[in-house]
Amino acid sequence: MTLTDYALDPSLPPITREEYVSRVHRAQDEMEKRQIDALFITSEDNFHYFTGFRSPVWVNLTRPRYCIVPSAGDPIIISASSNVIIVERTSWVRDVRTWAAPNPEDDGITLVIDALRQFACRWGRVAAELGTESRLTMPVGDFLRIQRGIAPIEIVDGMGVMMSLRFLKSVGEIARIRKVAQIASSAFEALPLAIEKGDTVFSACQKLKMDLLRRGADGTPYVIGVAGRDGYRCINLGPDGQALEEGDVLVIDTGSTFENYYCDFDREFAMGSVAPATREAYRRVWNSTEAGLAAVRPGNRACDVWRAMAEELGISDVQATGVGRMGHGLGLRMCEPPSVGLKDETVLVPGMVITLEPGISYKIESPNGPERRVEIHEENVLVTETGAELLTRRAPREIPIVAW
Amino acid sequence: MTLTDYALDPSLPPITREEYVSRVHRAQDEMEKRQIDALFITSEDNFHYFTGFRSPVWVNLTRPRYCIVPSAGDPIIISASSNVIIVERTSWVRDVRTWAAPNPEDDGITLVIDALRQFACRWGRVAAELGTESRLTMPVGDFLRIQRGIAPIEIVDGMGVMMSLRFLKSVGEIARIRKVAQIASSAFEALPLAIEKGDTVFSACQKLKMDLLRRGADGTPYVIGVAGRDGYRCINLGPDGQALEEGDVLVIDTGSTFENYYCDFDREFAMGSVAPATREAYRRVWNSTEAGLAAVRPGNRACDVWRAMAEELGISDVQATGVGRMGHGLGLRMCEPPSVGLKDETVLVPGMVITLEPGISYKIESPNGPERRVEIHEENVLVTETGAELLTRRAPREIPIVAW
Repeated sequence: MTLTDYALDPSLPPITREEYVSRVHRAQDEMEKRQIDALFITSEDNFHYFTGFRSPVWVNLTRPRYCIVPSAGDPIIISASSNVIIVERTSWVRDVRTWAAPNPEDDGITLVIDALRQFACRWGRVAAELGTESRLTMPVGDFLRIQRGIAPIEIVDGMGVMMSLRFLKSVGEIARIRKVAQIASSAFEALPLAIEKGDTVFSACQKLKMDLLRRGADGTPYVIGVAGRDGYRCINLGPDGQALEEGDVLVIDTGSTFENYYCDFDREFAMGSVAPATREAYRRVWNSTEAGLAAVRPGNRACDVWRAMAEELGISDVQATGVGRMGHGLGLRMCEPPSVGLKDETVLVPGMVITLEPGISYKIESPNGPERRVEIHEENVLVTETGAELLTRRAPREIPIVAW
Repeated sequence: MTLTDYALDPSLPPITREEYVSRVHRAQDEMEKRQIDALFITSEDNFHYFTGFRSPVWVNLTRPRYCIVPSAGDPIIISASSNVIIVERTSWVRDVRTWAAPNPEDDGITLVIDALRQFACRWGRVAAELGTESRLTMPVGDFLRIQRGIAPIEIVDGMGVMMSLRFLKSVGEIARIRKVAQIASSAFEALPLAIEKGDTVFSACQKLKMDLLRRGADGTPYVIGVAGRDGYRCINLGPDGQALEEGDVLVIDTGSTFENYYCDFDREFAMGSVAPATREAYRRVWNSTEAGLAAVRPGNRACDVWRAMAEELGISDVQATGVGRMGHGLGLRMCEPPSVGLKDETVLVPGMVITLEPGISYKIESPNGPERRVEIHEENVLVTETGAELLTRRAPREIPIVAW
């Protein structure tokens, strides 16, 4: 059996053993530069990136799992014995050290300490998931036991190493993001025909989720939905039972997945009719995305893309949304570094995948007087040698109207 | 607007402001006993338990959020300003302190340090999510900054306090678990008619997921699927592209959700026909669940339930599965304490919800000689005053055969 025997979509370029090995080699080059003996990995995304391990078992918090990437040689996995067949089936890693879990007294900790001591013999430095946007995916009490258990070996942040590799997507990674972005594009395009009078924000989102699965997304972990008269006040509410009404604008944003890779974008729908202020806000933000697309090219920085979009919109209207940036990296996480923000000077290079997410705050007239609304659009973009390739299908130029 | 204005299912007993307040009061009673000044909460499940905050934004790791439950008075929330409307809409907490995120230099950390200093003035002890099965849901580097920033205030484990409250489910919580367990029971019962020749494990699981959503589950974060000739070798593989064949046994296990509450159980299906050894293994495990159901009553311990199921099966066949326990708590997480295991002496009390998950390893004959298979069943059970109430609909007594 090989890693690709049971692919969900055999038409996609496989992510092969060679690709995983090359990720490890690139990590080891970085580790040499930074004098790191081993990466200690616990989170689903980094674990998958280096080992291929793929399973929904991350939902179960009882049994953590650990990967150690040494400065030379293959990674090892330390896992509950009940996870061994998942490793055999989905990973190329063959050094698997196991314990019988759950064992609250020692859920793999002695195995981890022994392995880190084995590998951390040059510089005495191990790098773990500690820094910005990290999530150490194990009990922190156990992490502190490991820290004491390996002293004087030092634990430093490893997110810099891991994210510096993950910035650049391979052909296989891009194909997976493109696939799920295209699936979601189709599902969004079909949704206006599915929404009926009597639907709530929740039921509209449920229809979208079912359609995403029907079209081949393997998960829909992030589906937010918000509706409001002539626009919405906030982009990230969970869908609830609010009834959709004539004149509402419904926004749905989805991070759906295919083989662990995410798309992340939203679309808006006007229920029956649309107010001039809303139509105008939609057009402004649509044009801002155009400015962003034109600014995405190798050599430009993330902040240059932000500035191009913000200047199209007016910087004060942008800052009034409270969102703090207008896009971000995308891949094994819905939101990865960099931030498309005023202060992020990350230089764009071919192979990066980012979202463009311009937004403004604008005013509408309501029976209670003037009210604020926000308008936020999002697309997913690959940086190419010459500019940008849309991975999503571009949002319609005018807000779609649900004829119900 | 009240917390229940936009309920997804208005027929369910609401989880009211009064219920959240009483959770806080029970926590404060425990904190007094344990000399804890404040709970510091970062994980989705504990955050929801105390505040009601409900949103898919947990998928986005860029902006963490923090809740502090002081030893007297109402909790406070520290969150990115872009999350404030989620708090207003889904939570009863009104003291919300915000920062403009993302801000890698200070993603709410100064606000957290100031608040912990404000509250930790009696014993100088704050309890965080550090212990068994915890996941501190923020960067650990920032956690260590907080630890240094509040010294000499000490940070101890708070999982004991939080889980001791969560053991006991309220009427509203039980109603949500029952609802999603009944939805999944219906979806499992309907699945044999939907499986066709040409289906893969993945496509069969996709059909189940769509049906779960159609019937009202609001999420399907955990759907595993495994198939093998005359049985399966492991319960927790992610569904992949393996084609279903005549004589295969397909097992699917789902942790689906409704308003953050999980069901967690599996069902098996024989493709076209079933071998005598498999049929026999199914019957043995089915009978073991019966023994478990008879043992679930107030006063019995988790280990008593384990022993009743294990003795029905033969302890060595049970231990050969490598799974380490035969059930666990269930609620805002798919797997909560206690473990239905040999060593867990937690006493059952009315209002606890647990899974019964007996399993064995058994032998089949294959063209390559004898092979091992496992057989694992699962049901979800409420401990009542007098015994057990099934929240799932009981698995069929004989393995269902897909007539394809």
